[in-house]
Amino acid sequence: MTYELYYWPGLQGRGEFVRLALEEAGAAYRDVAREDGADALMRMWDGPGIDTPSFAPPFLKHGKRIIGQTANILLYVGDRHGLAPKSDAARLWTHQIQLTVADLVVEAHDVHHPLGGDFYYEDQKPEAKRRAVVFRESRMPRFLDWFETILARNPKGPGHLVGARLTYADLSLFQVVAGLRYAFPVAMAGLEPQYERVVDLHDAVAARPRVKAYLASNRRVGFNEDGIFRHYPELDG
Amino acid sequence: MTYELYYWPGLQGRGEFVRLALEEAGAAYRDVAREDGADALMRMWDGPGIDTPSFAPPFLKHGKRIIGQTANILLYVGDRHGLAPKSDAARLWTHQIQLTVADLVVEAHDVHHPLGGDFYYEDQKPEAKRRAVVFRESRMPRFLDWFETILARNPKGPGHLVGARLTYADLSLFQVVAGLRYAFPVAMAGLEPQYERVVDLHDAVAARPRVKAYLASNRRVGFNEDGIFRHYPELDG
Repeated sequence: MTYELYYWPGLQGRGEFVRLALEEAGAAYRDVAREDGADALMRMWDGPGIDTPSFAPPFLKHGKRIIGQTANILLYVGDRHGLAPKSDAARLWTHQIQLTVADLVVEAHDVHHPLGGDFYYEDQKPEAKRRAVVFRESRMPRFLDWFETILARNPKGPGHLVGARLTYADLSLFQVVAGLRYAFPVAMAGLEPQYERVVDLHDAVAARPRVKAYLASNRRVGFNEDGIFRHYPELDG
Repeated sequence: MTYELYYWPGLQGRGEFVRLALEEAGAAYRDVAREDGADALMRMWDGPGIDTPSFAPPFLKHGKRIIGQTANILLYVGDRHGLAPKSDAARLWTHQIQLTVADLVVEAHDVHHPLGGDFYYEDQKPEAKRRAVVFRESRMPRFLDWFETILARNPKGPGHLVGARLTYADLSLFQVVAGLRYAFPVAMAGLEPQYERVVDLHDAVAARPRVKAYLASNRRVGFNEDGIFRHYPELDG
């Protein structure tokens, strides 16, 4: 059964973590708002017959089921397509990593919107500059340290975040590295030499045939200043 | 086997969502850093023998397993103690609600720390005031609308967020309401009449025998200005 992904058209955002999993799985899916417009998203988001409306996109429709929250969607998709380990302990650890990616995503967004999404970036630029210093100098290294550490400690080796096979957490870490490189090229160039395992994993994911084909296709929205990872040179190091 | 909860002593914070579930379950647990001090937390957090170190507390040790990320801990505890539905669809919906609570928690924290945790509140007061207006007037109603809507749409009635029985999501919504009342008493007094189902659920949870006994005990840390929900009168309506 074809999946229907509902997410804002025109940006990668949180939807991108779901797209990467569906693409790597080779799953049939429709990116509904990109194909049919944002109205189609609005109708499905909170229609009167929907018992489980999501607070925000992305959400995934699969048959009668509608599942929201990025990490929750990946929990569902990961189990169905071999992108999560089978053992309960490893499955929860994979999810824990994804939830930590979600924390990083919030902070990466809040760099350019420290006063919240109700003000334009232009109306919170001085505040964004202050928060960006903390993000680049304290938070980015802290998150990258953690990813590097858990790769180094993986008993099956540093090729994957969990066990010896690809999981959705690996795909998500690829996206984080790509996003940080786009948004903070100067800061990332300074940091990357310390995070060899993280960079190697990014490169290995990018080279996977399905991911590579996806990234080269027009299904991949480019990074831009509507998404989570935004390149404002004044916020970079 | 006794659970060991590792969280900062002296504040409710994210650990409180775990405490509420363990208390309602009647589970045996130790609140390690409160009993043995913060050093005990630091030792277990990132010891060299730990393959799955958490990015941040809380984390829960159960036998050899260490599980981090609040919502992930509740996924584990919920299944083990009948605080989550058995069907896969309802189980994921419960988790989705918890992840949305987590989003609210980040925003409630960022009201007093819009520039991040590396600056003191006193060093970001003007920014906090601007963000607080948005939180009170736009974000709080938006989250409360959503909780009220999903209670109203629960096919089993508005007594619980999911199905006809208590889940950890109900416990978490209780904590959110209690926290918002503490931090924003004026704003909440204005909003509550519109959210009858949410308030009723809060009251029903507070009246459950185990929760009631817990709230009256010294195991419940009081709300204070080290936690997520902080009462700064200048940020209230």
